[in-house]
Formats: sequence, structure tokens, C-alpha cells
Amino acid sequence: MPTLSAPWRAEQLALLARQLHARQSSKEFQDLICEAKFETNEVIESQNLSETEFEERKRNIELLEQDFKRQQSLDPKLVIMLATAKAEGYSLWQTARAKADFQCFSPALKKLIGLRQEQARQLNEPRSCWETLAQPFEPDLSIHRLQELFTPLRETLPQLLDEVNGWKRPDLLKWDLDENSQKILCDQLMSDWGRDVALTCISSSPHPFSITLGPKDFRLTTRVVQGQPLSCFLATAHEWGHSLYEQGLPVQSHQWFAWPVGQATSMGLHESQSLFWENRVARSRAFAERFWPHFVKQGAPLQSGFDLWKSMNPLTPGWNRVEADELSYGLHILIRTDLEIALLEGGLEVDALPGEWNRRYKDLLGISPKNDSEGCLQDVHWSEGQFGYFPSYLIGHLISAQLSEAMQRELDSPEGNHDSIDFCIRFGQESKLLAWLRKAVHLHGRKMNAEELVKKVTGKPLSSSPFLNYLRGKLRMLKGTS
Amino acid sequence: MPTLSAPWRAEQLALLARQLHARQSSKEFQDLICEAKFETNEVIESQNLSETEFEERKRNIELLEQDFKRQQSLDPKLVIMLATAKAEGYSLWQTARAKADFQCFSPALKKLIGLRQEQARQLNEPRSCWETLAQPFEPDLSIHRLQELFTPLRETLPQLLDEVNGWKRPDLLKWDLDENSQKILCDQLMSDWGRDVALTCISSSPHPFSITLGPKDFRLTTRVVQGQPLSCFLATAHEWGHSLYEQGLPVQSHQWFAWPVGQATSMGLHESQSLFWENRVARSRAFAERFWPHFVKQGAPLQSGFDLWKSMNPLTPGWNRVEADELSYGLHILIRTDLEIALLEGGLEVDALPGEWNRRYKDLLGISPKNDSEGCLQDVHWSEGQFGYFPSYLIGHLISAQLSEAMQRELDSPEGNHDSIDFCIRFGQESKLLAWLRKAVHLHGRKMNAEELVKKVTGKPLSSSPFLNYLRGKLRMLKGTS
Repeated sequence: MPTLSAPWRAEQLALLARQLHARQSSKEFQDLICEAKFETNEVIESQNLSETEFEERKRNIELLEQDFKRQQSLDPKLVIMLATAKAEGYSLWQTARAKADFQCFSPALKKLIGLRQEQARQLNEPRSCWETLAQPFEPDLSIHRLQELFTPLRETLPQLLDEVNGWKRPDLLKWDLDENSQKILCDQLMSDWGRDVALTCISSSPHPFSITLGPKDFRLTTRVVQGQPLSCFLATAHEWGHSLYEQGLPVQSHQWFAWPVGQATSMGLHESQSLFWENRVARSRAFAERFWPHFVKQGAPLQSGFDLWKSMNPLTPGWNRVEADELSYGLHILIRTDLEIALLEGGLEVDALPGEWNRRYKDLLGISPKNDSEGCLQDVHWSEGQFGYFPSYLIGHLISAQLSEAMQRELDSPEGNHDSIDFCIRFGQESKLLAWLRKAVHLHGRKMNAEELVKKVTGKPLSSSPFLNYLRGKLRMLKGTS
Repeated sequence: MPTLSAPWRAEQLALLARQLHARQSSKEFQDLICEAKFETNEVIESQNLSETEFEERKRNIELLEQDFKRQQSLDPKLVIMLATAKAEGYSLWQTARAKADFQCFSPALKKLIGLRQEQARQLNEPRSCWETLAQPFEPDLSIHRLQELFTPLRETLPQLLDEVNGWKRPDLLKWDLDENSQKILCDQLMSDWGRDVALTCISSSPHPFSITLGPKDFRLTTRVVQGQPLSCFLATAHEWGHSLYEQGLPVQSHQWFAWPVGQATSMGLHESQSLFWENRVARSRAFAERFWPHFVKQGAPLQSGFDLWKSMNPLTPGWNRVEADELSYGLHILIRTDLEIALLEGGLEVDALPGEWNRRYKDLLGISPKNDSEGCLQDVHWSEGQFGYFPSYLIGHLISAQLSEAMQRELDSPEGNHDSIDFCIRFGQESKLLAWLRKAVHLHGRKMNAEELVKKVTGKPLSSSPFLNYLRGKLRMLKGTS
């Protein structure tokens, strides 16, 4: 978008937000939900629906009602002000980041925090401000539960990082691949991982993303970064994981597309699916050893798949969240989560944000950002007033690890043919992993929330132990290679 | 778009078409137009509007009323059926073209023709069916007037083509440039031709286009074609010409953006602006000689700007309209125009279309398409039932040539500092050409129709003579180079 068009975009977004809110909180919509509720109760008597089918329909209605009540509790004026402030914040953040000038963005951030606090007040849920705002991303999450999940990470991750920092790891990525070669590798990856080209479409954009535009319309974007020959490949693995989840969500008929039960249950669960394919599969030794001949064919001067594996796991902390690997990623999230809770309900002043950010990076990652562009201005989320989203990224790591343990157990059973995840990867049988995820995870859509789903699938409440165990195991394997 | 999502897209488009038509033909909209009309008449009395200002406001209201009446005369059922048939037609055309199988598309084309004929009946204008459908693209155009304009071309273009076919012209394009080099050249071109980066944004897409999304939001796309080092460059010149016209349209305030008077007056005039920059400027000898050092800097093995000029003007007829040069382009349009008039009101059967197409290509261009993909399936327009658009491309050539003559006269006057178009091009003073176009053409928006504008600017009714004179002159200059 050209920079001068930002004010016009802000007006358009505010108009859309107002119209959308008016529809979603309208009497007409309320009546339709009531009718649907009545019909569902009638149908169970007249059509002999199974209890499961009835429960699904009931859940659909409940979720529609929940969202209707939320929309209804918001003042249309606030909806418009928020839409405008988001567009303005985003525009100012772009300028601020380009100039590394936090002051130029801080008034917009203050305004967004004030409006979000007002939104939480109007929603009037039995939750704290931050918790209320986090609901659209992680339904039913509380700060208390979040601390239970994250505290072990806060203790253990810095220790593991210290340990790795003692190793000597040569920089292996002194080669590059041209755009076309990288695209060929990405196509091969998706084709191996069950791509149907009639259902999916790949394009490029400055920031990779995955999006679903219809019941049979799944799209994703990636981009080639010069000098980083694995960046596009791993981003493709990640976005493809998101897309596979969306492709596996339950659809009864195309008119039901995007009904609540056919949606993703939480952003954390969504992230767990992208991270499973990116980290557990693509960054595994088994995968690197199987796939490296394709890299060599495209001109990569790799000695072995073992080299590719090492290159895929640099274990070097940096200031950038998006480029962080499994070991330091969690620390980036802990810092953001603490800071946004402090900003919204802990009394942290916006002007103190850069200092707090830098102090925590020094403490947890041993790194000082050069300036605020590398520091607290690096992510887009807060620029649009999106608070409560960051933890989902880390919850995704935990869910992925815990689901992987359950998957491993089942594959290793007589019914699973005494297989293992790594065996499947090594022999190009990722379709078995996908089939497991489809049945155990994707098909449930939003029938239960993320933690309920994890407990149902793994038999245990979500915890950070599987993730930490997985990390320790990977470090042990990588240690020999330093 | 993934192929399987076509039916869903068709449903969405039909829904949007229905809602848009409901708004545009609503009592509420009618009342608003009435109020605006009343207010305009009041305002002239109370505010002492100048006559020009009053005329502009009146014209705005008249155009709104005209469009309202058209919308109101259409049956909503037809609107939905047309939207559905367009989406289906487009999808089937894609399949048909990929398989070079016209039979697979012909039922959709028959349906579209039937629906368009019904649309013309419902619009019930004092015009023939084809004329009625051409109105949105060329307001007030008649078939009679079209034949007046095109008959000299039908006679002269094949003669000129025959003459050129006798020349021996070596293929100069045995080199290529990488994507990045081509992008640098395109950036240089737009920068030389008045680009403000804060207002404009460039991206890539399979088919180049230009689009305006807000009063300060002008975007265009191009694409690099391997083995054709001038394709992206000339497409950029073309799309930038479209964009310059849009950038120059009158805007009183951003709330008036996209009001009738602030719109393009016709597609032919729009095309004249893209063709002026592509053909009259970029493909001129003066431009090639000035610009070739930039090509050489990017690695092109050109001996001289003269070589670049020859490469930009191959004068070789082919089956493909989009890739045709100035000499044969008109013939592609004559064939399409004749055929679509025959299909809509001349009794030509759809099944006879491929045969008629091929016969006329043989007659006029001396070429036989290998199959229907290279023949009557090459263009997207008919697949979406778009009839009446093709002539605009050729009218654009005529308008560009006639405006250029007037521009040349004015530059060569004492007020114009005894300049010439080619002098301005040779010394990188294209800003003078742009300033002339802005004032003489762009700023009038839709205040008058295309022919009225041409007459006002050039003092003469539109005719094909300036274009044919221009072509003859160019051929004379190129002849020495064969």
C-alpha cells in the first residue's frame, strides 16, 4: 500500500467495522440464532439425531450466542474508534520502525491500550482485562493457568541456552540457492506432505501467511530471503502446517463452511500444527537426511543430510522473534506476555516499555537490541492493539510436543504397526502422521477448547514437560555435532 | 485461485452482484440523488457558484441518474443469473483453453450471449443490442460511428503489413535480463515519468494491470517473462500510462473520490493514455537512444539505442493480441469487433465461431492459429460475457495519435517554446508531455465523453487519419533499418 493512502484505508476499515458490528449485534441475527436453537431442539425429536450430532449442533448455537453477546455488549462508537486507532497505529508503527523512533509511535500505543481497556470493561466478563482480550485467541485461558504453563519454561530455557552458548558451532550457512531452486524444494516438500494442487494455491508476499477463503480454497504465501537458503523452505513447512489443519477441519456442507464448529479451536492449537510440521518434522535429523539429496540437486554444497540438519538448528539466540529457533523462541514470548499484561493491567507506563524490553532481553537472552526497531518495535501485533495473542505461539510449542508424544505412543503400538514418527519421516511416510493428526485433532474443529482437546488426545492436562523433554533430547543429539 | 474453489467463488460473486444491484436500484439511493439535485439547484442561488462549477455538479447528478435508471430497469433475477454465468464461463474457459477444446466452453458462451441479449432488452435503450452493452465502456458509441472510424483501418493496415512482410528483419532479441535488472529498469522508467512513491505501489501478477483503490492509492502490477527482456519494461510503460491518467483525474475532496465526474470518461480514452506512454514514448527512437545506456548497465549486449529501438518494434504479426505491436494490433481488434457484433445481433452461431475466427485471421493477418487456444479462446473477455469492450483498445490507438498531433502543434508554438515531443523525450523532459496531458485530458474526468474531449482538445472530430499517418511515418523510419 502506498504510504499516503493510510488515512483512506483507516476510514474504510472503520466503515467496515461499523457495518460488521451492526450485523453481528442486530436483532435480526439474534432472532435467527433463536430460531436455529428452537429448530435444533425440534429436530432431535423428529429426526432421531444421534447424541453426537445433537451435541455438535448445540455447540454451534452456543458459540454463536457467545459471540453475539460479546458484540451486543460493545458500543458502536468504541468499535469505530478502535478500527480507526488500529489503522493509525499500524501506520505510525511503520514509520516508527523505519526510523527506530519509539516516541513517534507511543501516543498511538497509549490510545490503543486505553481503548482496549474500555473494550474489556464493556465486555464485562468474569475475567481480568488481559484475559478478556485473549479470549478470541485462547478461549477460557486465565493468567493463572498461563503462569502454570510458562513458569517451568522461564526457569529451564535460560539454563539450556547457557549450556548451548558454551558449545562452539561453526556457521554452516555459507551458501545460497536461487529463487527458482528454492521454489522447487518447497513444491517437493508440500507434494510429499499431501498437497492437492486443485485445492491449494501458493503465492509470495513480504510476510508468509496461510489463509482459507472457501471450503475448497486454501492459499499460502512465502518469500525467498537472499542469503538465507533455508528461510523460505522452513516458512513453507510452517504455513503448510497451518493449511493442513484448516484443510482437515470438519465441513458438513459448503453452506456450513465457517460455522463455529468448523473453525480452529484456538490460535495455540493452530500454531501447534504449523510447529509440528516445521520443527518436529522438517527440522528433524530423519527429515534432513532423507531430504538433503534434493538440496544437493538444486546446487547446495552440503556434505550430508547431517549438515543440513545442523544448519536447520542453529541454536543461536538473536533479537528477532520470527527468526528464533525452538530453544530461544519461548523466551521472546515470555517477555512479550509479561509486558503486555503489565501494560494492560499492571500499571506499566508506555514510555517505560523500551527500557523494560531491553532489560528483559539482557536478562533472559543475554542480548541487547541495537535500537527500538530491533527491540520493542519489531512485531506488528501491538501496533494494531492486538493484545493476548503472543502466548498462543508458545502454547503451540507445548501442544505440539505433547501431541507428538501421544502420536509416538500410538504409532509404537501393535495397531500402529510398531512405527515411530522418525521412521515415518525417514521413509517419506508423512502421510501416516497427517492421518493421525486429521483424526485425533483436525476433525474436532471447535467442538471443545484446546486444553480439552489435548487432554482427550493425550490423556493428560497440557503441561510444559513434553516440550522441555523434547528440547533436552534434541540438544543431546546436537551436542555431539558442535 | 485453486481450481476446486470456482463454484464457491461463483456463489460469492452472485451474492455480491445481488446486493450491489439492490443498493444501486433502491428507493433510498433514488431519494439521495433527488435530494442532491435539489440541493445543487439551491446552491447555485445561495452560494454564487460559477457556471462551470454548477455544470460540473449537474453533470455528476445526470450521470448518477443515468446509472440509477439502468440498474432499476434490470430484473434482480437476471443480475444473479449473469453473475453466476460469468463465474462459470470463466472457469470453463480456463479448462477449455488449457485443453484447446472449444466445445467444452461453447455451452457457457451460448448461455452468456442469451443473458446479455436479455440484459439489453431490459435496458431498452434506443440502441442495438451490442451498442447497449458497449455503453459502459464507450458512452454514446454507435456501430455506425465505429464503422466510420474502423473502415480506413480495415483497408490500410493489411497493405502496410504486406509491405513490412517483404522486409528482411533480423531477430535482435537473442539476449535476456534477470528479474532484478528488469525491475531496476522499470523503476527508472517510472521515476523518469513522474512517479511519487508515496502515492504508488508496484507488485507482480500473471497479467499486468493498473488499479486505483483510493484518492491517494494507485497500484500497478507487471511480470517478468523469461526470454522476453522488453516485455516487462513495455508492460510497465503501458500500465504506468493508465495510472498517470487515474492520478490526474479531478478530485475535489476525498469524499468525492469515485464520483462520476472524477472517473475515466471511456475505456478508449483510458487506453489512449497507456498507449501514448507505451507506443508514442517508450517505443520511439528518441526514447530508445536516450534510455539504452541503462539497458547496457544492466547487462544487455546492445550495440546502440538504435538497436534497442528496432527490438522494441518487431513489426511481426502473430496470433496473440496482447503481444501484437502497433501495426497488427488493430487487425486483432477488427476481427473481435466484427465477430462479437455478429454473435449478438448478426445471427452468427457460437459453434461457427472458431471457423470464422480462423478464416479472418488468415484473410487479414495471413496467419492460421494452431488450435483454438491460440485462436478464439485466447482472450478472457467473452468468457465473462464482456461484449463491447474490444473496440476501446483500438479507439485508444486512434485517440493517442490524434492527441499527439495536437500536443506536437502546441509544443511547437511560441508558447510551447518551439519544442517537440521527440525533443522532450530525447532530453528526459517527459514531465512536459505529462503536464500537457494532465491539463488537456486528465483534469476533465467524465465531464464530457471521449469524442467530445478529443474534439475540444484537437479541434477536429476523432478519425483514423492521425493514427495511420503516424504508422506510415514510423514504418518509413524503420524501413531503413531492415
